[in-house]
Amino acid sequence: MNPGTIPSSPSVYQNRQAKLAAVLAEAQLDSLILNPGPSMVYLTGLHFHLSERPVLVFFSLSHAPVIVLPELEMQKLKGLPYEIHGFSYGEDPAEWVKSFHNAIHAADLSDKRNGVEPRQLRLLEYSLLTEAAPKASYIQSNASVAKLRMYKDESELSSMRKAVEIAQSALYATLPQVKIGMTERQLAAELTLQLFKAGCDPELHFTPIVSTGPNAANPHATPTDRRLSPGDLLVIDWGANYAGYASDITRTFALSKVDTEYEKIHNIVLEANQAGRASARPGVAAEAVDKAARDVIEASGYGNYFTHRTGHGIGLEGHEDPYIRVGSPMLLEPGMTFTVEPGIYLPGRNGVRIEDDVVITETGAESLTNFPREIQQLI
Amino acid sequence: MNPGTIPSSPSVYQNRQAKLAAVLAEAQLDSLILNPGPSMVYLTGLHFHLSERPVLVFFSLSHAPVIVLPELEMQKLKGLPYEIHGFSYGEDPAEWVKSFHNAIHAADLSDKRNGVEPRQLRLLEYSLLTEAAPKASYIQSNASVAKLRMYKDESELSSMRKAVEIAQSALYATLPQVKIGMTERQLAAELTLQLFKAGCDPELHFTPIVSTGPNAANPHATPTDRRLSPGDLLVIDWGANYAGYASDITRTFALSKVDTEYEKIHNIVLEANQAGRASARPGVAAEAVDKAARDVIEASGYGNYFTHRTGHGIGLEGHEDPYIRVGSPMLLEPGMTFTVEPGIYLPGRNGVRIEDDVVITETGAESLTNFPREIQQLI
Repeated sequence: MNPGTIPSSPSVYQNRQAKLAAVLAEAQLDSLILNPGPSMVYLTGLHFHLSERPVLVFFSLSHAPVIVLPELEMQKLKGLPYEIHGFSYGEDPAEWVKSFHNAIHAADLSDKRNGVEPRQLRLLEYSLLTEAAPKASYIQSNASVAKLRMYKDESELSSMRKAVEIAQSALYATLPQVKIGMTERQLAAELTLQLFKAGCDPELHFTPIVSTGPNAANPHATPTDRRLSPGDLLVIDWGANYAGYASDITRTFALSKVDTEYEKIHNIVLEANQAGRASARPGVAAEAVDKAARDVIEASGYGNYFTHRTGHGIGLEGHEDPYIRVGSPMLLEPGMTFTVEPGIYLPGRNGVRIEDDVVITETGAESLTNFPREIQQLI
Repeated sequence: MNPGTIPSSPSVYQNRQAKLAAVLAEAQLDSLILNPGPSMVYLTGLHFHLSERPVLVFFSLSHAPVIVLPELEMQKLKGLPYEIHGFSYGEDPAEWVKSFHNAIHAADLSDKRNGVEPRQLRLLEYSLLTEAAPKASYIQSNASVAKLRMYKDESELSSMRKAVEIAQSALYATLPQVKIGMTERQLAAELTLQLFKAGCDPELHFTPIVSTGPNAANPHATPTDRRLSPGDLLVIDWGANYAGYASDITRTFALSKVDTEYEKIHNIVLEANQAGRASARPGVAAEAVDKAARDVIEASGYGNYFTHRTGHGIGLEGHEDPYIRVGSPMLLEPGMTFTVEPGIYLPGRNGVRIEDDVVITETGAESLTNFPREIQQLI
């Protein structure tokens, strides 16, 4: 992440903090306690590395925000467009619990119901909290900030469009360099370089997946020294970040002439991708979008080879709410952004995935990504 | 991280797992439970993103390793050079706790003393563990793997040397492009690009810090749109990764002619850096290295402006044991690698830091980094 993620309007954080207060009150929580990560960035504009030195912000309903942080980070609090009280500690870890104690008491939360994020908070901070304020309760609450972060405003969408544009132009610049005999890792390295040349933030949410042949049958493959060979499918799953916001796209290419079954499954996945996107609109459940895509693949007889959910939300995190999966009744609403990424994976042979990033509009869903989806024979 | 981090010898993980068992027995633990991160990579060679889907490996003293993971990641277990038992779950989070339960019972750990890493384990995994096996105890134990990981073998050191070489050549390639009027962010972006061109792993441990003038007075600055100006000090804190291993270096440059006080503090910091490195050898305490560097700065009257510890361990993580700080009695031993990075920070004005990566040898400490430390006037 970088300082570019701080929007220019000074009041955006106060607005978000006020909205958070409403969400917390509704959830009957007295506070939300966050460690470094996307929710902290969203609510404060503050970037900290998640390091061996704990940092926590306390948002309470009754007090201005309070933050515990290392002394050497105190300067980050200068000139912020909102009130925040810092409690710092020095380089000896023995000082941590005292700072935690002081902060939680200053925010008057030591006997309250405090929300925490289970996917973000570590045992390190959690045990310091319970030691510093044993009478407080700590309620797992992924939903509170996630609820706010799901709805992207125009400035966030514009960063996401830029993240898509950077990713797509990086792939356009990379494709002419694809050669039979190069390794997956070499191709991934070239694409990474092109992402930075195209203006990607210096910190990638994830490094490109480049997988071919049998490796493409693993949806979460990491690039290997396998060489690109004629007859392979080539799956490229990549994205850029801009001002902290992510894009996440997948396209599948043919290397020379591929087996007709591979062309067939590419067509099926393409149809599933289209069906998923076409089904997405306000008021439709997340699981219905999953079903729309999954039905196409199941009807084709390849249902057992589509082994993951259809998509995930995207924004300041590469994966966030809403999740587009079986069993999720969450109703889609305008401003939500997520991926649609069906796939078919033939173990030991090859795989296909086609992934787009969409935003729910007033009437349907717009694809932020428009890189051609049809199978393209590269060599 | 990338698959390049898997060493070629198939037995390296078995060796490390056997050493872990000895460390656990000594700490009176029955197991160590790890989620994705450097310790898991070190012990298993397995790379997982730390995502919304929990992954845990259980190393027990009495059973082969057991892993809980998403179904779609099962392929990663194929062809591993050691025995491991997978318990997978599908896309519905409601299935997690059952997989956790099955795994922890299979490893016979449901009523045992299990070690966990507080800086790595999240509340997500911790609460699933306590739900799946409420009778087990979970002991915070940063030390157990850290103890192994502190001692680098020749193959690890060779990766670290390569990470240094990549970082240094990237800076050599970047310096000719430094111009008055460019922004800190532009310079950081150029250096990032050069890191990847020089062969850095696609995932950086941290993105370069480029800070000038008043921003250089913040040891943890992030690059801003401030333009490089004559009379500024320019602090560049950067590093590369190679095969998963990190380098981390800082040099401070002068832009045009700088204030004589800035030249003076640069000389003091350089002397402190040398004193720190010269004091490091087997049998010396970490705090003594801190003191050697700190004494130089205190004697010069700038003691209040050296606001952080002298260094941190480095390896698969950018920050790891041993920490070189006041109050750490840990005795240095051959194979330990850490930074020596004293600094002087004049609030609102300018700052200096000079950071090297060293390895403890049989008789002293060798600096892995050799980029010239003397102040260089760039423009």
